[in-house]
Parts: sequence; structure tokens; C-alpha cells
Amino acid sequence: MIRPWRYAVLAETLAEIRPADPRALADARTHQDRLTKPRGSLGALEEVAIRLAGAAGTSPPPMPAPAALAIFAADHGVHAQGVSPWPQEVTVQMVANFLAGGAVANAFAAQSGASVTVVDVGVAADLPDAPSLLKHKIAYGTADLSVGPAMSVDQAVQALEAGISVARGLVQGGARCLITGDMGIANTTASAALIAAFTGHDPAEVTGRGTGIDDETHARKVAVVRRAIEVNDAATVGSQPSDALRVLAAVGGFEHAAIAGFVLGGAACRVPVILDGVIAGAAALVATALDPAAVDHCIAGHRSAEPGHAVALAALGLRPLVDLELRLGEGTGGLLAHPLVCAAVRVMHDVATFDSAGVSEKQA
Amino acid sequence: MIRPWRYAVLAETLAEIRPADPRALADARTHQDRLTKPRGSLGALEEVAIRLAGAAGTSPPPMPAPAALAIFAADHGVHAQGVSPWPQEVTVQMVANFLAGGAVANAFAAQSGASVTVVDVGVAADLPDAPSLLKHKIAYGTADLSVGPAMSVDQAVQALEAGISVARGLVQGGARCLITGDMGIANTTASAALIAAFTGHDPAEVTGRGTGIDDETHARKVAVVRRAIEVNDAATVGSQPSDALRVLAAVGGFEHAAIAGFVLGGAACRVPVILDGVIAGAAALVATALDPAAVDHCIAGHRSAEPGHAVALAALGLRPLVDLELRLGEGTGGLLAHPLVCAAVRVMHDVATFDSAGVSEKQA
Repeated sequence: MIRPWRYAVLAETLAEIRPADPRALADARTHQDRLTKPRGSLGALEEVAIRLAGAAGTSPPPMPAPAALAIFAADHGVHAQGVSPWPQEVTVQMVANFLAGGAVANAFAAQSGASVTVVDVGVAADLPDAPSLLKHKIAYGTADLSVGPAMSVDQAVQALEAGISVARGLVQGGARCLITGDMGIANTTASAALIAAFTGHDPAEVTGRGTGIDDETHARKVAVVRRAIEVNDAATVGSQPSDALRVLAAVGGFEHAAIAGFVLGGAACRVPVILDGVIAGAAALVATALDPAAVDHCIAGHRSAEPGHAVALAALGLRPLVDLELRLGEGTGGLLAHPLVCAAVRVMHDVATFDSAGVSEKQA
Repeated sequence: MIRPWRYAVLAETLAEIRPADPRALADARTHQDRLTKPRGSLGALEEVAIRLAGAAGTSPPPMPAPAALAIFAADHGVHAQGVSPWPQEVTVQMVANFLAGGAVANAFAAQSGASVTVVDVGVAADLPDAPSLLKHKIAYGTADLSVGPAMSVDQAVQALEAGISVARGLVQGGARCLITGDMGIANTTASAALIAAFTGHDPAEVTGRGTGIDDETHARKVAVVRRAIEVNDAATVGSQPSDALRVLAAVGGFEHAAIAGFVLGGAACRVPVILDGVIAGAAALVATALDPAAVDHCIAGHRSAEPGHAVALAALGLRPLVDLELRLGEGTGGLLAHPLVCAAVRVMHDVATFDSAGVSEKQA
């Protein structure tokens, strides 16, 4: 159990989360089969619509629009280990780029009509105020996870609760779909460590090349992840939520914690959350360790090129909608999936049934 | 050579088609690498944007919106062989459903802002007038391709030229992206025959279960495709366009011919064409046999569950954007891909460069 006297927001949020509603799932499945299309002919999109009906507790589920993207930004002490070819200041520079509308996430958000909110949960610099910037800075970057815990448990929960608060605020503002985004140079290293810890895979199986590193840097990155698991005693995660928090704090990042909270917040509000790539996959493992029902409210937006992402998705039991070798982060894969999710749900609202349209059914 | 004195519209259209412009391709590639994202981090979407620059002859390419879906509808004499569990009248019933806005294609088109035009090129019934119905009926369905040619060459060219005319009309009406759609009970049988003929694959490798058939029907369908290839001497297609027309007429459908023309029409107008599923894949093989440069103007919207579709895409050298086991047709897979194509192109227009945004580049 989460100690509610200490982490009240987290405990209340977990208490609100409900698993998929079996009746809504069944109703949605029956409805799919009455629509004027061969049964199952929309493939994975039928499952998306059914899944969202279960999550919402009603069939057809509400249209998942408008969507809101939250990009959680933070820095990482492990950057000092040379795991990334990008200077750390790119985190703060890219935050400025998001706020100016110049990043790929902005272009994709414009395409799908999503709003963009940037959340500072741990950037290693003071940021000037801006209309779409929320300040929830917990520290100026994490500590180096390869020499000890990246965060204290209190810090990790602070970040989780920031994510919950952002999710609730966006839903109160009208969002009917949440999309996870991240920015943090070196955050694929923390993602690999979290995925290794929460799935029990060897670091070598889940550590990738991030936004592009050579063989030597990759070998160093695998060694750093292995060391992080060892020094933090994080090779396995116990079934208690408190152990999940301990491991999150030990080898995660502020944005991972915040995204885990964002997922929990969306689930508590029964608003679907489209997960972006490997950072979100790692964070969703944390969220489902805190409450397994949280995953019922998640859609895997895409599968990134990072090997750890496929491992995380398999552990979550999620099938990605887009699979185009993206490895950018920012929420770009989640944003690309949003129109597909909308299309899947729109079918449930708009399409005629065999009866209503006078279309003959398949002969047995 | 196509005999221009006889098939003037087709010959003129072929004369207009240009291959991808190498300079626009190079400019687009250079531009991609200057944008504020790691090189290659948008995976297959970078190639989409570069491809469309080559097709348009300018970088960045124009935004591929608004889009227009054309659903080419026709019936098939081969239906009499029991290759589909659906009654033939479903073709005309689904045309009514499209025109009433009740089909999945309508829901997906609404989602992506595409217009829907239905084109009768060979439905086996007279259709009442309707605002979004274009009448180019060539016959009341094809002849049975398993006993002789499905169409005469003149009929096939009539259908091709209808497709060209529809493409040109939609572009004149403002469409900046064309999406192929089809409706025709039994049309996966003709698709399999065309793909077998144009790629040289055995019928068993390219004949699938369409919208859902049992093992016995599937075995019958494979035998029908094999017979069609044999009786029509269509095991291979010669390099002359006249032979491509002969084979199209022998084992195709009116909608295949029309979609081939639609592709050629889009290519001639330098407006990109998003191909839907296996019917479009078969038609695109015909179009590229008539002019190999036509494929430079095509995007593969998705990969359907039909085995022949993967074979056709491989022969065309196209990578599908959506891969979700759809097997519906109508243009649904093409419509789903449209927002992805727009997102890819929007990046080229909206995203800041490293210089302009003051973002540090990766260290060597």
C-alpha cells in the first residue's frame, strides 16, 4: 500500500482508478459485429475502439478529442557518464523550441489538433515564464543513477503527483485524450534501467542507441545501465507499490515519474492516454506496478526503434498502432496515433448497421 | 507504345508523367538533416516527405491536403464461381451506403477531412442519380475471368480513361492528394490474378481470404485464379504496354482498370496518390507497367491482411505506412494513412532548423 498519510494525492488517485468495464467491452464487441463491414475487417482498430469502451465504461466510447500533449522535460545526472552525443543544454534549448512552436511535436500536434503543454519537472536551468509552460521543477536534474539513486522516493512521488496534477488540469480544461511526451537528454538510459528492472530483462537486451550513438558509446551505455541496476539493487521489483517507488526513484528520471503520474491521472479521470515511445513505455511499467488497472486506459501510440520499447510493450500487453522506426520522443509517436484512435472510435458512432443500411449479410 | 490514335486520353496522360525530380529529392534530403531533430529520427516518415518532394518537383513539397477519396465500384462475373460468401448485390447496397454516409470509408474520410466520390464503372445494376456519384459504367459487371477475358481491351481502356478523368476532375476541384478506394464483391479474386500475372508469383502465394472465407472456398478461389491465368495465357506479361492492357483486360476488373487510370491521372497532375489495399496494389502494378514513373507519385497507405498485397508492394518497392490487419477495402487504409502523410510533409514546412532555433548539434 502507498502510505496515504504521506502521499495523499497519489493514494487518492490510485483509489479512483477502475479496470475496464466488462459490460461496456461486451457491448462494444457486439456493436462492432453489427456494423456494415465484414467482421474483424478493421483489424487492430476494432480492438482499440472496444478497449476505449471498456476504459470509459460506456459503448460507444466518447470521441477521444480534443487531445492534449504534455511534454515532461528534465535532465539526468547520468549524462556525465557520456551516454549521449548531445550536450545536456539541448534539453533547455528544445524546451524553448517547443514553446516557440518550432519542434516536430508542434508540427504533429498542429496536424492532429492537439494542444501542447511543456512541463518542467527537472530541467537543469531556470526557465523563463511562458504561456504553455508549467513549472513543477523538483530539482536541477537527477543525480547520477549509475553511482546511487537518481532521486529520493519523496522526489519521485513529487514528480508523480506533478504528472497527476497536469493530467487532471488538462482534462478539466476540456481534453478528452491525453498524449505523453518527453524531453531529456540521456533519458533513454534511465528508460532502459527502468525496463530492465520492471521486466527482469538483461540491460543488454533493452538498451538501444537513443537518438543515435556509435558502438563504443552503446557499449558504455549498456555498462552504465548494468551498474545502475547493481548499485541500486534493482534487478527485480517486489510486488509492493513501495518497492516500485523505490526502484523508480533509484533508476528513473523526473519525466518518467511524472509520466507515470500522468497515466494514473488520466486513468483516474477515465480519459484515455496515448503512450509515446520508450520513455512512456518505461513510465507505464511504473504506473501499472502501482495499479495494474491503469493499463486498461492506455493505448500504445507507436513502437520506437529502441529495443527496450518492444520489451516494455510486451510486458504491458499493448500493441502499437504506428511502427515507422521513429526514435525522436517528444510525443511524436503518440501524436501520429491520435487520428487513428479517433478513426477507430468514430466508426462506433457513425457507421450504419446491416439492418439500418439494408445491406445483406455474409452467407454462412 | 500505346496506339495514340485509338486511346488518345491514355496516351496523352502517359506523355505527361514525369519521374521524381532528382534535385528536389536532394534538396528535401538536405533540408531534413537541418531540422531540429536527430538525423533519421522520423524513420519512414522522412522518406515520405522526400518522396513527395521528388514527385512534386519542389522542396518542401506542397501540403497533400485537402484529400479526395474516389471509390470505384464494379461487379465481377467470377462471382458465379463461388469465390465470395457475400451476395453480389452487396456491391450496389454498399454504394448506397457510401452515398448515405454510413460506411467505414465515410467515417474515416470525415476524420481526415477527405471528400468521398463514388464512381460506377461497372456495377451490375442501374444506380439512381446522387450528388457524389459519378457514372462511368462500362458494363453490368465483367465476364467470368476463369473462362475467358473479363473485359475487352477497349473496355479496359475505357475504364482506365474513366479513372484518369476522375483524377483530373478532383484535382481541378482543388484536391491536393488522391486516395484510391474500391467496392466490388469478388474483387480480391481479380486482384490475385493480376498480381500473379504482373509479378510472376504462383496463384497460391497471392490469393487470400478476402473479407473472410473458409478453407474450402479459399481452395476454390486459388483454383479459379489458376484457371484464369491459364485460359487467358497470363502467366507472364510482356514489356509492351499493349501486353499490360491485354492482361488487365483478361483477368482484371473495371475498378482495377479505373484505379490504374486514377494513379496515372494523379501522376500526370503531379498530385500524390495514396494507395489503399490489395485492389489498389494490383492496379498500381498495371499503372507502372504502362509507365514505371507512375510509382514515384504513389504512397502505400497500408498493408492489408491479403497475402497478395505484400507481394504487390514489394514489386512496387513501396513501404506501407499503416499495418493493422485491415481487410475492408473502400479506401479505408489509404484514408488512415493520410494524416501521417500530412504530418510528414508538415515537418518540412513548420519545423525550425538547428541554426534558426539556436539548438546545439550532436557532437561528433
